[in-house]
Amino acid sequence: MERKVYLTNTDIEEAVSYYLGRLDEAAAGVKIELVDVREALGRVTAKPVFARVSAPNHNAAAMDGIMAVAERTFSASETNPVDLKPIEDFDYVNTGQLIRDPYDCVILVEDLQELEDGKVRITAAASPWQHIRPIGEDIVAGEMVLPENHRIRPIDIGAVLNSGVRQIEVYERIRIGIMPTGNEITEDYDHLEPGNYFDTNSWTFCAMVEEWGGIPDRISPVPDREEDLKSALMQLLERNHIVIVNAGSSAGIRDYTAHLVEEMGELVFHGLAIRPGKPTVLGIVDGKPVIGVPGFPGSAFLAFEEIVGPVFRKLQRTRISQLPRIDAVVSKRVVSSLKYREYIRVKVGKVDEKLIATPLSRGAGVTMSLVRADGLMIIPRNSEGYEAGETVSVELTRDMSDIENTIVSIGSHDLIMDYMATLLEKREAGPGEPKIHLSSAHVGSMGGILALSRGEAHMAPIHLLDEQTGEYNTSYIEKYLGNRKIALVKGVKRQQGFMVAKGNPKNIRSIEDLARKDVVFVNRQKGSGTRILTDYLLKKNHIDNSLIKGYDRDMTTHMAVAAAVSAGTADVGVGVFSAAKAMGLDFIPIGVEEYDFAIPEQFMETEMIRAFLEVLRSEDFRKILEELGGYEYYEEQ
Amino acid sequence: MERKVYLTNTDIEEAVSYYLGRLDEAAAGVKIELVDVREALGRVTAKPVFARVSAPNHNAAAMDGIMAVAERTFSASETNPVDLKPIEDFDYVNTGQLIRDPYDCVILVEDLQELEDGKVRITAAASPWQHIRPIGEDIVAGEMVLPENHRIRPIDIGAVLNSGVRQIEVYERIRIGIMPTGNEITEDYDHLEPGNYFDTNSWTFCAMVEEWGGIPDRISPVPDREEDLKSALMQLLERNHIVIVNAGSSAGIRDYTAHLVEEMGELVFHGLAIRPGKPTVLGIVDGKPVIGVPGFPGSAFLAFEEIVGPVFRKLQRTRISQLPRIDAVVSKRVVSSLKYREYIRVKVGKVDEKLIATPLSRGAGVTMSLVRADGLMIIPRNSEGYEAGETVSVELTRDMSDIENTIVSIGSHDLIMDYMATLLEKREAGPGEPKIHLSSAHVGSMGGILALSRGEAHMAPIHLLDEQTGEYNTSYIEKYLGNRKIALVKGVKRQQGFMVAKGNPKNIRSIEDLARKDVVFVNRQKGSGTRILTDYLLKKNHIDNSLIKGYDRDMTTHMAVAAAVSAGTADVGVGVFSAAKAMGLDFIPIGVEEYDFAIPEQFMETEMIRAFLEVLRSEDFRKILEELGGYEYYEEQ
Repeated sequence: MERKVYLTNTDIEEAVSYYLGRLDEAAAGVKIELVDVREALGRVTAKPVFARVSAPNHNAAAMDGIMAVAERTFSASETNPVDLKPIEDFDYVNTGQLIRDPYDCVILVEDLQELEDGKVRITAAASPWQHIRPIGEDIVAGEMVLPENHRIRPIDIGAVLNSGVRQIEVYERIRIGIMPTGNEITEDYDHLEPGNYFDTNSWTFCAMVEEWGGIPDRISPVPDREEDLKSALMQLLERNHIVIVNAGSSAGIRDYTAHLVEEMGELVFHGLAIRPGKPTVLGIVDGKPVIGVPGFPGSAFLAFEEIVGPVFRKLQRTRISQLPRIDAVVSKRVVSSLKYREYIRVKVGKVDEKLIATPLSRGAGVTMSLVRADGLMIIPRNSEGYEAGETVSVELTRDMSDIENTIVSIGSHDLIMDYMATLLEKREAGPGEPKIHLSSAHVGSMGGILALSRGEAHMAPIHLLDEQTGEYNTSYIEKYLGNRKIALVKGVKRQQGFMVAKGNPKNIRSIEDLARKDVVFVNRQKGSGTRILTDYLLKKNHIDNSLIKGYDRDMTTHMAVAAAVSAGTADVGVGVFSAAKAMGLDFIPIGVEEYDFAIPEQFMETEMIRAFLEVLRSEDFRKILEELGGYEYYEEQ
Repeated sequence: MERKVYLTNTDIEEAVSYYLGRLDEAAAGVKIELVDVREALGRVTAKPVFARVSAPNHNAAAMDGIMAVAERTFSASETNPVDLKPIEDFDYVNTGQLIRDPYDCVILVEDLQELEDGKVRITAAASPWQHIRPIGEDIVAGEMVLPENHRIRPIDIGAVLNSGVRQIEVYERIRIGIMPTGNEITEDYDHLEPGNYFDTNSWTFCAMVEEWGGIPDRISPVPDREEDLKSALMQLLERNHIVIVNAGSSAGIRDYTAHLVEEMGELVFHGLAIRPGKPTVLGIVDGKPVIGVPGFPGSAFLAFEEIVGPVFRKLQRTRISQLPRIDAVVSKRVVSSLKYREYIRVKVGKVDEKLIATPLSRGAGVTMSLVRADGLMIIPRNSEGYEAGETVSVELTRDMSDIENTIVSIGSHDLIMDYMATLLEKREAGPGEPKIHLSSAHVGSMGGILALSRGEAHMAPIHLLDEQTGEYNTSYIEKYLGNRKIALVKGVKRQQGFMVAKGNPKNIRSIEDLARKDVVFVNRQKGSGTRILTDYLLKKNHIDNSLIKGYDRDMTTHMAVAAAVSAGTADVGVGVFSAAKAMGLDFIPIGVEEYDFAIPEQFMETEMIRAFLEVLRSEDFRKILEELGGYEYYEEQ
């Protein structure tokens, strides 16, 4: 069993620059084709485009009125009006129309007095060529309309046609062969055996290539057999400019990509100093780039953007469209290795004029953090990361105007937050009002309170039980946010309970059952309202934590707890009814709690919070709560 | 002959907001369809997408190594190593693979010592669940993967597939009927009768609709006959969500759009307070939006972006992608009417850390200014415009990184500047170096010198004859830029001469011929090197300007002068050989002049100017000069 070790840990800029330098032959092999400009949107000119005719192709009226012989008007004045005779001295003309001989000026319709005999009277002289668009004002025949290596935009199509040119020379569209590999990768999206993965990367790659303006050529996943991989690669190489091999696993025993490239051509790099994306392979086979992209979606997406992107652009002769950069305050500590340049997806929010970047989960496999991200924060090599509160530079992948109109909610997780987000998206904004969005981060109730105290959120959803009073939320706000004016907006009442497998096979009925020897528990993280409730119940019933199997294994959402029970790695967890229902679990209620929103007074009158409250009290929201079950709705107060 | 007067001059925001409010029925009529997510790039979700399965769907190894029973490792330490037995205690596992029972942790390959009997030795305890990606770490079944009204990006496709969902509900793509009208509009792009125009707008519109993600449905230009227009409109209405009528002329006698809309449905607005774009028509026919867009390309493009755009987005449920905004110093005075909001295209350059916005020609018909623009400057209603040097806000339509790497050349016009731009585009940038671009504005030699003195350009191409010394350029730089360090880089020598119709029908041989009664001249603008040369020759030969017909009609480029001669509106003009050749004119040389580049010393060592000089001295450039004719090349100095 030969175990591969990464050959290199090369700096990404250095690697990409060297690799691109090796691809001149590949770039020269890209053909030029003649296409109708009307079908050339997004194509790239291979030659400059020169105008065949001038535009306008004639002297044309720039305004509505009459075209006249200027000489005949020279003596006109207020005190000495001049009458012009039709045809001999003038004729009517509309904007854009041809100025015929002998006319050489245009007089505006509002400067005329029409007389009954068909003549017109003027009271001012006209100068020659006034209100006339001369031939070639827009485009002069022979002029360069578009340079070489120019990507065709809609307006270019109009301009090229306007210059009398219909066919233009462009580079053929770059074709990228996409080859998913791995025995565990399936494209049967209706069934998934444990241990297998859907092939998802190759479809994301296809869509990226389409957005770039190239042509994707994807094949079905190839099993990890050398002869299959080799013949698939050869076929793809024949009909494409670039081939991507998407490995099933990283440097495992079955990672043949580097080996294959080495055998069939030249292995230029194996291993880059980036995270995620380290096990990337850069090779050249038959003069064409062959790139091995790692399997985890996070790594795959990044390697495709940062490495396949520049290769595509070199061949297609396009430029990267640069993302806008902003400075933001990072909301929690991020640690990075000195060895790698690290790419971290972040949510961005604007709270009280301060831009806040919140790092999302960094697991390489976490596709949802790619979906949810507003931007990308890059930690350079040789940096250990950032402390909370430091200012960092973020490349935005979402519009700043959207970010400015997004409610930043940090706190406890509940399914209803997803539904609130959807209701806000559906809400029609009033005239001149922007659309309001909701972004919620799930860090538990106490995490939300801390975010409010640091000024990093517009609201915190919380459900914190006061063990002394048995009341929810108010005492926590007083204790931790006493120095700020905070409104507590009542949200929903919701049932908490034990989530257990269908039919409750372990017969779990009460809090005492958690300490049974045959029962495995799965917990929530410290600071979450659910954890506080659990600990409160344990204490009240004098149960020792250390007797509970799995007490130390904690999850950050209700759904993650439900998933653990559903998968059988735990017998029971505490959570809300809707999560149990979504995962098909049984639910044993242990109490009703109050899930409310702590909102600083200063935000209460903003358009954002008003929209949020409007949706919270809406009939649509009430209906959703009924359908979900396990909630009580507060009637309009 | 009934002449239409604009009905309204409504504020654009007010008009669009009211009009959108009237289109709820049209928006409700947009159908929902079920599509495969793999073909859904750019589509918009009509329902939220919920995960069908969790991802991963099993507890999976997060690293390469062994999966083991954690309990068996608890006693391991440096001083007390533990040997694990294969299968009983552990098995090998690769990243991503299933963790099978009874294993509950992963130990990294680098933390193992493989023994000869197949056992492995460890020297540290492993905690349960370490290096394991639990079920649902990425996506939990039942979780909302995408909200409603979300436009599908590449990464969303991967995430949706990952959640076990293949088909999603999206809004049908919005279809826009595009109806060019006007007797003078032709789609025979090979022939153009004087007075006619190519249909260019409709193809630009089609491409814009495609970029938005809609489906364009264009028909051939409809002649200005009421019955034809009516039946075409009815047909397009039947199969589209929106119909655009593109008028041949503005408010001329043949503008039927408003009339037609009024007869067939409701005319909501006619005339908006924007420039260009005023004669826009907003109507509703059969509950669907019918929009009359003005004919001039500048007006048409703007009305399509600012009015059709929001209507499309309301129906398609997408959001506008906001352009980045910058502050720039406006380089010349722009005057605007209080009555309109005015949209002015600008070039943007960065000179010595200062962003400069230079307004482009405002003629509504000027497609080339749309092609050349880097951004859009908006002058609000009730503003009279800006003075040179004022700071203005510009919406960028080009990447800031491109703008930062663009040489701003302001000065005299020569065809070679177009070729220099192309050679720079073709030039391969060195590793880590950006691509250099060239933007040249043509304001004449003196205009270029003034731009340098105001610090608004990197270079000024000039050819200024000193009447005293007969020398070119040096004395002007001393006189006007004496307080700055300026390098004069030798450019090319070029022939100036008379441009006359093929065969020289008026037999023009010398400067005296310009004053002949039967000869019409076309001049260049004041401050241009060519004008200075012309005036020098007239003065030297004691010829009175006032005797020359057309002396007061001036053009800003060689090509525009050549076009005037070619069209027969003048018999002769002064210009360079390449312009005469491009327009098929005869050329009578009158002298050789020196076309050089004035460049402030401080820029000489920048990457931009080094790239420019490299191209100026290149073999490729020498070949172009030979092909063009009329130039002499300076050998490497």
